[in-house]
Amino acid sequence: MWPDRRLIERLGIEHPILLAPMAGAGGPAMAIAVARAGGLAALPCAMLDAEGIARDVVTVRAGTPAALNLNFFCHTPQADDAPRQRAWRERLAPCYRELGLDPATEAAAANRSPFDATTCALVESLRPEVVSFHFGLPAADLLARVRATGALVLASATSVAEARWLVRHGCDAVIAQGVEAGGHRGMFLEVDPATQAGTLALLPAIVDAVDVPVIAAGGIGDGRGIAAALALGAAAVQLGTAYLRTPESLVSPLHRAALAAAEAPTALTNLFSGRPARGLVNRLMREYGPLSDDLPPFPTAGRALAPLKQAAEALGRTDFSSLWAGEAYALARDEDATRVTRRLVDETRAALARLTPGPAGA
Amino acid sequence: MWPDRRLIERLGIEHPILLAPMAGAGGPAMAIAVARAGGLAALPCAMLDAEGIARDVVTVRAGTPAALNLNFFCHTPQADDAPRQRAWRERLAPCYRELGLDPATEAAAANRSPFDATTCALVESLRPEVVSFHFGLPAADLLARVRATGALVLASATSVAEARWLVRHGCDAVIAQGVEAGGHRGMFLEVDPATQAGTLALLPAIVDAVDVPVIAAGGIGDGRGIAAALALGAAAVQLGTAYLRTPESLVSPLHRAALAAAEAPTALTNLFSGRPARGLVNRLMREYGPLSDDLPPFPTAGRALAPLKQAAEALGRTDFSSLWAGEAYALARDEDATRVTRRLVDETRAALARLTPGPAGA
Repeated sequence: MWPDRRLIERLGIEHPILLAPMAGAGGPAMAIAVARAGGLAALPCAMLDAEGIARDVVTVRAGTPAALNLNFFCHTPQADDAPRQRAWRERLAPCYRELGLDPATEAAAANRSPFDATTCALVESLRPEVVSFHFGLPAADLLARVRATGALVLASATSVAEARWLVRHGCDAVIAQGVEAGGHRGMFLEVDPATQAGTLALLPAIVDAVDVPVIAAGGIGDGRGIAAALALGAAAVQLGTAYLRTPESLVSPLHRAALAAAEAPTALTNLFSGRPARGLVNRLMREYGPLSDDLPPFPTAGRALAPLKQAAEALGRTDFSSLWAGEAYALARDEDATRVTRRLVDETRAALARLTPGPAGA
Repeated sequence: MWPDRRLIERLGIEHPILLAPMAGAGGPAMAIAVARAGGLAALPCAMLDAEGIARDVVTVRAGTPAALNLNFFCHTPQADDAPRQRAWRERLAPCYRELGLDPATEAAAANRSPFDATTCALVESLRPEVVSFHFGLPAADLLARVRATGALVLASATSVAEARWLVRHGCDAVIAQGVEAGGHRGMFLEVDPATQAGTLALLPAIVDAVDVPVIAAGGIGDGRGIAAALALGAAAVQLGTAYLRTPESLVSPLHRAALAAAEAPTALTNLFSGRPARGLVNRLMREYGPLSDDLPPFPTAGRALAPLKQAAEALGRTDFSSLWAGEAYALARDEDATRVTRRLVDETRAALARLTPGPAGA
């Protein structure tokens, strides 16, 4: 039933459905569950140290012989900006006061490390079948080492210019990340969130511009969306939000409840990390954004929020929590990740069948 | 080849392709050309007086016996806001100076009138097969009179809540206007452009929420996009940007050249009218927005720009011109509107065929 078999055959997977690597939400259990249904397993590595990555890979390998995608961030780490940190914390001072917190309070905040020589050596030893990058690509020497392992190299493009750049620099396939996608925009040449395009326009433009397989991401909530992506020329799709409510998902109970309630719309915000990302609109986004200038650099903008998030969550509130979600999140269900994947395949089959009434009606 | 024949049969058209009524860009010639290829003709009426509407309808009726859609705006006219007009003009003062203009200069600006008793009487006498509305619906008594003519009533929804409201208030079909669409957002319950969703997420959500046929609009640039919309459950599609470069298009030569250059991205902006609309990013949008608070109310924000637009265009510059375009505008071509429509049908057929490898490959 799959019109483009290039990636399926290269990776030995049954269906062109790639689990999106979601830092903070995905882990070995989700990867194994998707692989068991014939999709591509993925592990987000940006928030893990070398030991954590190795442990997760061992867990996945023990659970499935199928292909595995390790995902890394490629941002250029910037020195923390003390004046901006101070200014951001000052803007947040009323929230600190409201929660009875000393404005100087510190709490553990999510860190995201870029791909470097250490993680490159890890890739060389762990030998994942796929290595994918977000926020561009690593330095040429590191990328050459990754390619030398034989891994298929993927990266996210949010514009035609980014897609062309990625192919020129050695990507084997490109992920067309429409603006509907949950979590961080992969933008690395583009700088303006206001001009980021949706999958419906971005995907065929990238398909026309590059010679490699293109993977559609963003706004795809069920099999109808997968069929649509195939119609637009995608060789495969990458879904994350569809798996956020699975038992294998590592999101907090509050995040899960907000997804299930399906009341809030989503918007792009840079308040939680310093880079634009899509999540459910909550109080912080309403009162301070959703986009703001002069934040501390990625990923350090989250530091000033960490004490607020912790205190608010203890009260059962998500006012200061990043509730990442793609635009189609209301289509997600409480099902395990194997069932989600199988349902997506069945729904895609049904959507394709509806499009083709057969010889009599053609 | 069309999976959903409800609208086709109701309207006696050959293909479920609706010409988007584009105020300032569409007119009788474009309507006739699309109808001749089997699509639904449309006339934008928001910028015409009763005489202009009647004249255009007579022209279309003389050119084709096919069904015709008359489109009206339904905004609530607001009194002009003198302090906001003054403030907006003051902000623009440096641009006036740069062009050597007296900041008190006035020039003719586009006006948009809402549907009212006069236009309702016109509809009763002209008897269009379809009447469509943007920015909500007219008052109940006027809508009842439109429905009594037997016209099919359409309106744009930018969210599930808006779609449900439209059906509850008497729409026969709903246009799901994804955020990719060019020109004005049809928002009437929604107020925040940051939470407007793309067609890929919006369309299936609306299809699931209402019992009437749903028409997809926004981000559809060619037959691949039409096939995608059908996969998502659309009964038909509405395209405007695909027709902007036809000889029948009334856009200015500068607008046409900017579309053909395909260099600028698009963004949502409210600077030109006071309401969010999508167009090519130009100098005004870069320097003053693309979105700004405290503008004069729709449609009067354009008044302070009119002298700037006129002076800049005389110099061959589009710095202050609204260059409406949808996100997929780069897929549009210099072809007449009949050929565009026929090509869209052929491309859709090809896209559907690629999705269905036939019995052997199924």
